[in-house]
Amino acid sequence: MKATAVANANIALVKYWGKRDARLILPQNGSISMTCDGLSTKTTVEFSGEYRKDTVIINDEELQRDEKDILGHIEKIRGLAAISHHAKIVSETNFPVAAGLASSASGFAALTMAAAAAAGLELSQKELTVLTRQGSGSASRSICEGFAEWHKGNSSDGSDSYAESIAGRDHWPGFRMIACIVSEAKKKVSSRSGMAQTVATSPYYDGWLKTVEQDIGTIRNGIKSKNFSAVGLTAEQNCLKMHALMLTTKPVIVYWIPATVEIIQHVLAWREEGLECYFTIDGGPQVKVMCLQENEKELQDKLLRLEGVKKTIACRPGDGAALSNSHLF
Amino acid sequence: MKATAVANANIALVKYWGKRDARLILPQNGSISMTCDGLSTKTTVEFSGEYRKDTVIINDEELQRDEKDILGHIEKIRGLAAISHHAKIVSETNFPVAAGLASSASGFAALTMAAAAAAGLELSQKELTVLTRQGSGSASRSICEGFAEWHKGNSSDGSDSYAESIAGRDHWPGFRMIACIVSEAKKKVSSRSGMAQTVATSPYYDGWLKTVEQDIGTIRNGIKSKNFSAVGLTAEQNCLKMHALMLTTKPVIVYWIPATVEIIQHVLAWREEGLECYFTIDGGPQVKVMCLQENEKELQDKLLRLEGVKKTIACRPGDGAALSNSHLF
Repeated sequence: MKATAVANANIALVKYWGKRDARLILPQNGSISMTCDGLSTKTTVEFSGEYRKDTVIINDEELQRDEKDILGHIEKIRGLAAISHHAKIVSETNFPVAAGLASSASGFAALTMAAAAAAGLELSQKELTVLTRQGSGSASRSICEGFAEWHKGNSSDGSDSYAESIAGRDHWPGFRMIACIVSEAKKKVSSRSGMAQTVATSPYYDGWLKTVEQDIGTIRNGIKSKNFSAVGLTAEQNCLKMHALMLTTKPVIVYWIPATVEIIQHVLAWREEGLECYFTIDGGPQVKVMCLQENEKELQDKLLRLEGVKKTIACRPGDGAALSNSHLF
Repeated sequence: MKATAVANANIALVKYWGKRDARLILPQNGSISMTCDGLSTKTTVEFSGEYRKDTVIINDEELQRDEKDILGHIEKIRGLAAISHHAKIVSETNFPVAAGLASSASGFAALTMAAAAAAGLELSQKELTVLTRQGSGSASRSICEGFAEWHKGNSSDGSDSYAESIAGRDHWPGFRMIACIVSEAKKKVSSRSGMAQTVATSPYYDGWLKTVEQDIGTIRNGIKSKNFSAVGLTAEQNCLKMHALMLTTKPVIVYWIPATVEIIQHVLAWREEGLECYFTIDGGPQVKVMCLQENEKELQDKLLRLEGVKKTIACRPGDGAALSNSHLF
């Protein structure tokens, strides 16, 4: 009744921002991401009659709050497996939590895979993405290797809202996502409450829904044909459309800080000078810069010279979630 | 054949962003602004048979380029007055030009009033706003005192697209607009080309048009009843809607710099702490902070302590454009 899984974070190229069903976590639109080699979470889950309560330890700290989503998800898995033991969950993440580097995605992917295995559930990868999705929507993509598409689905029970790999980790090894850490502060507005406010209040949400399918087609095809310009530019525009939604949400959601804009302005200037790169930003201040391998070093050097950039982490397309034999306890 | 006029800049509370007729400068939507006491341009125009060409001198510099709009406007006024003399135009502005402090608004308002008087045209204030509008749309509002509304109008000849004062300068003397100068660099994308790109390419422009009339009603009523919370919050939201349009324009328009976001984040935080203030931003990096007179000093002190703020100028509702007897040459 003990299992460990490792999952990578993923960075969306077409963003997920808005649910059509909050309980099942069904999205308003499909999305596409790159699973990021090197931004990983490792989680060990044990169900045992010896535990008197559920315990969650993330990066050596026992959670006293914010654990509702995690325990709700564990409860769901206990229900599916028809077990009643309490769980001990230990998780380690090698990058800042809750600051817009998709820590909840790698966290929920590793948690779901480890807990399902510890509970004795035998699930296909598709079923695993559906189960993961019910813990954290974007985490469903972190189950999948390389580039993943999370299908919106149409059914009301969520059975067709799953993620799958649309290109493996070795399909496009030259694609790079450089995560720029500009702040390690915990964000004030969670993605979950932010996106619900957006759907309810942004006058631009209709315009988002009307154009996002086209972005998905462009990026899916661009990944398949390795058309970096199409993928990069469309991903950047999609990210700006999402942040424009946030800016028009009531009350307003501003995830950007000065360093975010510093990077945006420089990426646009470098591209104008002929150095091809594009940015994307999630629900936090960090900026991720997309480029091809040949420009990775030059861009990292330039980024590190900016005042607001504390650290950069360059990722290539990575593995999907996997079980591991080395437990954390 | 010589006249001088002084006009103040205006800061829009409901923004103008998009034309339905580029030649006549007819807007897609109505807008409302405050005419800012103290951000002024003074312009002297002389038509004379002794001049061999039109000359434009702004802040002691003779313009060699960018003068097409100004000379086209002078040509239109010559046509209306049926005169053919060349003009000498001397203009002085007491704030940075073309960096998002509405210098073209005060400039075209003063230019139009001075040139019309020098050319011997006798125009009502309404006619003067219609003529000014054809030089620079937002300048039509700078003709008017206090708080001005520029009506969108419906006629194709533009005769009903005029500005009028909806409250005089003494109606709400406690309203303050604190302009924060964060950069004196000239902006890269002019408002004129930027807004045309937005109308053509932003997927959110429909959402803008659908909601802007409601903003106009809220702000017009808020000004009349001196409801600062309604005016400030709606103006801030309207500004964010406009910048969200810019961010979703192709190619993208990012007028913000790091200091812009620094001020945005602080204004939101101060408001949360109980210090009532709101921001608005035009086509440039500068931020204008709205407050009531009682909080003006505290806010200016706080703003000047921010890293990116070089200078602040606090304005109250000001005079409309007026002729002056003290010529610049």
